[in-house]
Amino acid sequence: MRTLSSDLPDHIGKTVHIQGWLHKKRLLGGLTFINVRDRGGLVQVVIDNKAEVEKLRGLQIGTVLAVDGKVTEEPRALGGAELHDAKLTVLVSVEAEPPIEIDKPLSHKPDNLDTLFEYRPIGLRNLQEATVFKVQSAITQALRDYFYQQDFTEIRTPKLLAAATEGGAEVFKLDYFGREATLAQSPQFYKQIMVGVFERVFEIAPVYRAEPSATTRHMTEYISVDGEMGFINIEDLKQFLGGQMNYVSDHIWKEHGDELKRLNATKPKLPKEIPSISMAEIHAKYSKANGQNTVGEKDLRPDEERWICEYAKKNLDSEAVFVTDWPVSEMKFYHKAQADNPKLVDRVDLLFRGVEIVTGSMRENDYAVVLKQLKEMAGGDPEDPGFKPLLQAMQAGMPVHGGFGMGLERLTQKFLGLNNVKEASLFPRDINRLAP
Amino acid sequence: MRTLSSDLPDHIGKTVHIQGWLHKKRLLGGLTFINVRDRGGLVQVVIDNKAEVEKLRGLQIGTVLAVDGKVTEEPRALGGAELHDAKLTVLVSVEAEPPIEIDKPLSHKPDNLDTLFEYRPIGLRNLQEATVFKVQSAITQALRDYFYQQDFTEIRTPKLLAAATEGGAEVFKLDYFGREATLAQSPQFYKQIMVGVFERVFEIAPVYRAEPSATTRHMTEYISVDGEMGFINIEDLKQFLGGQMNYVSDHIWKEHGDELKRLNATKPKLPKEIPSISMAEIHAKYSKANGQNTVGEKDLRPDEERWICEYAKKNLDSEAVFVTDWPVSEMKFYHKAQADNPKLVDRVDLLFRGVEIVTGSMRENDYAVVLKQLKEMAGGDPEDPGFKPLLQAMQAGMPVHGGFGMGLERLTQKFLGLNNVKEASLFPRDINRLAP
Repeated sequence: MRTLSSDLPDHIGKTVHIQGWLHKKRLLGGLTFINVRDRGGLVQVVIDNKAEVEKLRGLQIGTVLAVDGKVTEEPRALGGAELHDAKLTVLVSVEAEPPIEIDKPLSHKPDNLDTLFEYRPIGLRNLQEATVFKVQSAITQALRDYFYQQDFTEIRTPKLLAAATEGGAEVFKLDYFGREATLAQSPQFYKQIMVGVFERVFEIAPVYRAEPSATTRHMTEYISVDGEMGFINIEDLKQFLGGQMNYVSDHIWKEHGDELKRLNATKPKLPKEIPSISMAEIHAKYSKANGQNTVGEKDLRPDEERWICEYAKKNLDSEAVFVTDWPVSEMKFYHKAQADNPKLVDRVDLLFRGVEIVTGSMRENDYAVVLKQLKEMAGGDPEDPGFKPLLQAMQAGMPVHGGFGMGLERLTQKFLGLNNVKEASLFPRDINRLAP
Repeated sequence: MRTLSSDLPDHIGKTVHIQGWLHKKRLLGGLTFINVRDRGGLVQVVIDNKAEVEKLRGLQIGTVLAVDGKVTEEPRALGGAELHDAKLTVLVSVEAEPPIEIDKPLSHKPDNLDTLFEYRPIGLRNLQEATVFKVQSAITQALRDYFYQQDFTEIRTPKLLAAATEGGAEVFKLDYFGREATLAQSPQFYKQIMVGVFERVFEIAPVYRAEPSATTRHMTEYISVDGEMGFINIEDLKQFLGGQMNYVSDHIWKEHGDELKRLNATKPKLPKEIPSISMAEIHAKYSKANGQNTVGEKDLRPDEERWICEYAKKNLDSEAVFVTDWPVSEMKFYHKAQADNPKLVDRVDLLFRGVEIVTGSMRENDYAVVLKQLKEMAGGDPEDPGFKPLLQAMQAGMPVHGGFGMGLERLTQKFLGLNNVKEASLFPRDINRLAP
């Protein structure tokens, strides 16, 4: 019967059987110590028997081992216990020396990222690397829990599409039995259609962008967290996002606080009601403070995003900010213009720690208006198989609705304080990288 | 303040405000009844005021409405309550008559499936259709809950790959910035690699098969439920799958029992320990009972799958069966041959209600043996970017491990008793269908 490393404190004084990987060997004061890794973490094992020390000599890091030993209290060991009188059994031997060391933090400097990703299958065995994805798993779980609590239904929508719907650029094309198909850049129209069925829907699934440059913010494949709600206004949308961000933050700090601290992450300041600043106001504030002139620009500069986040942290006690009141030039055909000021869109982006992690908006739900906007703003053909299903749903009656898309890797990156979004992807993809 | 239809019983005698879609109009004994649909279900509303009846006259099904009315006990109404003294407000009007009726069951006959899918954005508003995907959402949630309970970590692996890894046929190819990329047919190698990190991992994500024919069992895009576990044997794998199937079945029947009954679904007989029958024994039994000769065949015929499921239901009190002891001719290079009989593979498929829903196996974890099998069985190049990451992980030490892949739509189909797997996909994809 196997005992996990994390359960050792329940077995003090007893002999247990553990199985895992040889993670580290050390000589300390004439004694040999090894760390064995299993899914619970690390166990420290003291090897004092000569035959066992001998057995250990030729074993490479990564060797799969069973260890029988007596659980002994040891305050200096992780978890407060270690194994004594250990007997080792090699389960799977490793011949070659590992190409990278996994018992020390791996370099994440920009110059080293390619090496980091090249050896990913082994490097992820480093506990610091693994923590990133353990936390990402917890983030996903918390995002979903919050969706469920708010009465959302999970949906699965196709990523193989007949036509490029949203913007023709940056779309991957493929041969589909002699026809052209494209990969979905977002589940936008499908989630809107599904508001007509379930009112509140979410999807967490890959999306694809043929991003032609390698940046620290973009990947060609990423996990999009999409939510869409009917019978709501933009304040409801903001309230939902504020609640979800807080729920996720509280959850990961409760479940993984120690590991997060070890990665030098800090728990973000996130008021229940995240502050809103209009784009015009951000431009004005930024221009005044930085001797620049961004007034009238239709989007935020990356430096502006960073600056307004710093501003909000200092002055509004929040590391997240909603950017509201977007100019109509940034409007997409399915967006809704503001009723009292049609030069502005009811769009709301969430900036978090210097970068946009959420794009949200209210959607135009009047069939005639959507049809007009599609033709005039996007030059779209209502009979295009990419637009037709959305229009079908609109024509059959759609309530006021709105929603958002969030990049899971960016969210993970910002919670953990990583520099490059690719560090938050197990096997990242960009223009230069299709493997491992 | 909006009240949901499902909460009406808490408001008997009070006036409430509901919002939803006009779902049905009826004249009954001189009275006008309407059903309004919201995410909680249907509300029955009695319209007795002449002006309100007049207002209702021109309204199309699908009109988005608010209704203020008094909640009155009515045992004959769904949920035991209906609205009286109702005042209607049109929120979003609908001009066109809907192209299909949504208040009666939609035809799922093979000849009608194309129409069903063509009008999917509206047809899903039919409560019977919506139930399929409400239950699918619950199935997904239960699958994940079981993974979490068993200490699995959720992973996200890329669907854009450098090369066709598992079998070159039925792979979608795309242009990736001038290079060729392929769409993942399975997360097989990635989940094995991740066993080296977290021991137990799962992923629920789309996979792609360029299936060149339209069958009732296949789609070109489907949701694959993948699990992989280290330090286990094939009995552990079977025990896990039996536990998970039972957990999911219990969960959906507890949460959605009434809706499942309305779809004429029955709760499957699933013993905790699902019976195992070897492939040779199935061939022998089937041949004897049906005057056929399948003895020695390397796979099961579709009719054999149906027959052995009927057999197990009658004789073993189980609607699921494990098929074990597969011939080595069906072995893939990453499979593990049986230690005591290298002519058989440690593979285990789960048949459920006549069709295979799970393929599972133990994996070869000895680096030298995997390398040999890759070269000899698959003619694979160890330097191929599709194989290299798996070999890297193997070389660095991998424990005995095994896992499985399960099609979410097939599982949904079989729990609900649907004829065609596409009926369990919101927007199905096959050789002829890329829209809606």
